[in-house]
Amino acid sequence: MPPDSRFFAPEGPFTISQLAEISGATIERDNSENRVYSNVAPLDDAERNDVGFLDNKAYIDQFRETSAGCCIVEARYLSQAPEGLSLLVADNPYLAYAKVATAFHPSAEKSYCPTASDELVHPSAAIGAGSVIGAGTVVGPNAEIGRNCIVAPNCYIGDAVRIGDNCRIGALVSVRFSILGNNVSLFAGARIGEPGFGFAASPTGAVTVPQVGRVLIGDGVEIGANSTIDRGAGPDTVIGAGTRIDNLVQIGHNVRIGKGCIIVAQTGIAGSANIGDGVQVGGQVGIAGHLNIGDGVRIAAQSGVMRDVEPGIAVGGTPAMPIKKLFREIAALARLANEKGR
Amino acid sequence: MPPDSRFFAPEGPFTISQLAEISGATIERDNSENRVYSNVAPLDDAERNDVGFLDNKAYIDQFRETSAGCCIVEARYLSQAPEGLSLLVADNPYLAYAKVATAFHPSAEKSYCPTASDELVHPSAAIGAGSVIGAGTVVGPNAEIGRNCIVAPNCYIGDAVRIGDNCRIGALVSVRFSILGNNVSLFAGARIGEPGFGFAASPTGAVTVPQVGRVLIGDGVEIGANSTIDRGAGPDTVIGAGTRIDNLVQIGHNVRIGKGCIIVAQTGIAGSANIGDGVQVGGQVGIAGHLNIGDGVRIAAQSGVMRDVEPGIAVGGTPAMPIKKLFREIAALARLANEKGR
Amino acid sequence: MPPDSRFFAPEGPFTISQLAEISGATIERDNSENRVYSNVAPLDDAERNDVGFLDNKAYIDQFRETSAGCCIVEARYLSQAPEGLSLLVADNPYLAYAKVATAFHPSAEKSYCPTASDELVHPSAAIGAGSVIGAGTVVGPNAEIGRNCIVAPNCYIGDAVRIGDNCRIGALVSVRFSILGNNVSLFAGARIGEPGFGFAASPTGAVTVPQVGRVLIGDGVEIGANSTIDRGAGPDTVIGAGTRIDNLVQIGHNVRIGKGCIIVAQTGIAGSANIGDGVQVGGQVGIAGHLNIGDGVRIAAQSGVMRDVEPGIAVGGTPAMPIKKLFREIAALARLANEKGR
Repeated sequence: MPPDSRFFAPEGPFTISQLAEISGATIERDNSENRVYSNVAPLDDAERNDVGFLDNKAYIDQFRETSAGCCIVEARYLSQAPEGLSLLVADNPYLAYAKVATAFHPSAEKSYCPTASDELVHPSAAIGAGSVIGAGTVVGPNAEIGRNCIVAPNCYIGDAVRIGDNCRIGALVSVRFSILGNNVSLFAGARIGEPGFGFAASPTGAVTVPQVGRVLIGDGVEIGANSTIDRGAGPDTVIGAGTRIDNLVQIGHNVRIGKGCIIVAQTGIAGSANIGDGVQVGGQVGIAGHLNIGDGVRIAAQSGVMRDVEPGIAVGGTPAMPIKKLFREIAALARLANEKGR
Repeated sequence: MPPDSRFFAPEGPFTISQLAEISGATIERDNSENRVYSNVAPLDDAERNDVGFLDNKAYIDQFRETSAGCCIVEARYLSQAPEGLSLLVADNPYLAYAKVATAFHPSAEKSYCPTASDELVHPSAAIGAGSVIGAGTVVGPNAEIGRNCIVAPNCYIGDAVRIGDNCRIGALVSVRFSILGNNVSLFAGARIGEPGFGFAASPTGAVTVPQVGRVLIGDGVEIGANSTIDRGAGPDTVIGAGTRIDNLVQIGHNVRIGKGCIIVAQTGIAGSANIGDGVQVGGQVGIAGHLNIGDGVRIAAQSGVMRDVEPGIAVGGTPAMPIKKLFREIAALARLANEKGR
Repeated sequence: MPPDSRFFAPEGPFTISQLAEISGATIERDNSENRVYSNVAPLDDAERNDVGFLDNKAYIDQFRETSAGCCIVEARYLSQAPEGLSLLVADNPYLAYAKVATAFHPSAEKSYCPTASDELVHPSAAIGAGSVIGAGTVVGPNAEIGRNCIVAPNCYIGDAVRIGDNCRIGALVSVRFSILGNNVSLFAGARIGEPGFGFAASPTGAVTVPQVGRVLIGDGVEIGANSTIDRGAGPDTVIGAGTRIDNLVQIGHNVRIGKGCIIVAQTGIAGSANIGDGVQVGGQVGIAGHLNIGDGVRIAAQSGVMRDVEPGIAVGGTPAMPIKKLFREIAALARLANEKGR
């Protein structure tokens, strides 16, 4: 699926020749015929008029099976391309993609900015029966807020954001590019939908990759004070129903968190990590990007998780390991230091 | 003491039969006579008309000595109940308590939410001589702000909050359910009094425990930008006079911090920890819940404190240990790796 | 250079006798003649009418070569004073300095606080062509905002702040005592220019050291949601051009970060650290104060850096060490625990 056009309406379309020129990539194979490309999309969710990219070998299966019309890729992966896929070759596919995505989405950060003479709640926003919008709170065009919600004062609710019924948005919260279910609570100062930390290296410095995914928050989710949930880069960032996130937690772009998880304060989950259902994460944990954490995993406070974790396992330490192994290592080191100290 | 009725006016009262029905607990012993129960309260601070709970063996002494009228408890602790205490037995006392507390306090998150046509500073709020309330700042009903305070623009000061004299509240700060002394400084984006991360497990997911304690902040306290100080669950969260807290620090519910402490950035202190006077905590430290940290303790940056620490000790590492022991372990491991590397 | 008078106009001037009285220090050598002292300044950047201090042996060379007119110092360093420097001796030079700096700058935290009847954008602020100031946003006296900027709603931009062209300031951001270049992006909830965590110990508790430095942010810098960049204590806090800082990052006072650095979420950099160009810092890293981190250094996630790092090195672990050494230690400990477990 290309980016949700309610949040990110694309420029273009572009021909493959235009994409080659924009990106600096070389047309290796062109099956476009008269097709023009209308958007970027993740490889596993793309259609014939979308452009994708492959930058990480971990996603090679998505490349082999993609339904995208065109893909930006390094030369060494060409042999694994599915038939019919048009191919743009680049030494740095991520940089080339950044340029293409910017061509489609030059204004991905744009948000409603009323001035003092404008209406704070845009006339096109729909506010459900029984909902209260606090003084000073901005609600952007085409936003939809359900019934019996309280949005506290001095918040910022961006364009086209959807909030379900019976939600409680604390003071000074910001929400952009996001869709919230029912009974969601966001506590004061939470930041939902800011751009992920996404950029490609280039000879002239970092080039921003437009962040054109959303944040999808399930029913009954609670998110603590001053926590930050970045929106997706292309895929969405997803927080499953009933999950509770404490204060000052960082969730990177494209992270998927299952249902009924508990995430304690100051934990950080890096981009594209995939967290199962019922996972319990202690405070100040770090989880590296692109990992799979199985259902029911428990992670001790301050752990640094650097590998996938199988379902149901309890892990701890940095690098995180099964908790019994961690205790053995702690004991072994204490004994060793004691011996040496004699 | 039951919850402060200025912040949390209870519903009820309820008979013990009603409490049993609400909570799903069984009446094991009923000394209520004609008494009705008017509130929940922590066991060590409850009176005859209050309902408490025991969920953690660490607090068994409070149970043995409580003056509460009724307590929710597991069957195995019944024999240790003081005479005269009425007893509700539950397999999961915390879940049963969550339901009872919700019956007394169904609206514990409710805060003043003026809309565009309301007065931002509620007419019943008392603002002392010489104090300035910034534009866009909300001050709730019955709030009291002392003399010569500056509350910067776009803040949120909730219902019944009390702020002493000569305080300085930075821009975009929120304060709820809190009582501040004199000469307190809160820097931009600090979040004081959001609910603690409190919920009970249940077959249908997490059940919120209403957070009905306050934040009490002593004279001369400073709290850094974007730090979060959760209010108590029932007991209060307390920050002693003269303590200085840096940016992005998380203080959990019921934490008690003594006087003259120094807490460096990004440290997290979990719920119900008890920190003495003059404690110095480095950056990015984690302190587990329910611990006792003695007066004058020094904790090195990035430590993970998992046990009580005696007064005056310097600790470091994860799990935290006396600092000399930590240095011995670091040296021993370096030697070992060197040997093995040969 | 003494503090920028656009942000911090000094009281005074004071004679050396007045300074001695204010600080409780003793005049050890007086070359002042008729000179009066007009400000405080860092030793390496001071002029004849400025007062500096030496509190950390690491800066002894700055003391030996200072052009300050007067310096507060411990007796043991007197012999290394340059000729002509007037000398105030104190047992605790930092405390004495705190008192002197407070005499010059009693109102270092003062910021524009319009009330409901004042103009949010001060008439003396200059807003460039094409720039949009969101509703509810405060812009202080003498602030200068360049062309084609968007400052989202409900922000706080303090007195005399300068923002370049094409900058994008997200919702609910605060900026004080800062100068931003062109093409800077600050995401929602970022806190720029709050005071550093600076105070001197005294018998009656911590004494605040007025924070009279600025934050200087280069062209193209991006700073993530809810990150906090403290202003300098006297020197400035500096973020070099093109550097990208993720969410919930803490940058202490006087930190200097070079160009083109990448700093991932929840990292903390303590005061006066000096980070080179092109440094890559993983998530949840801690860097101790006053360190020098060379150009091109890479620091693994969750590391604790406690010593200087040479240019180009990759380090990891706590305490941070070369990454190969870290892997050897991890492997050696795993083997040891395995042996012991048999």
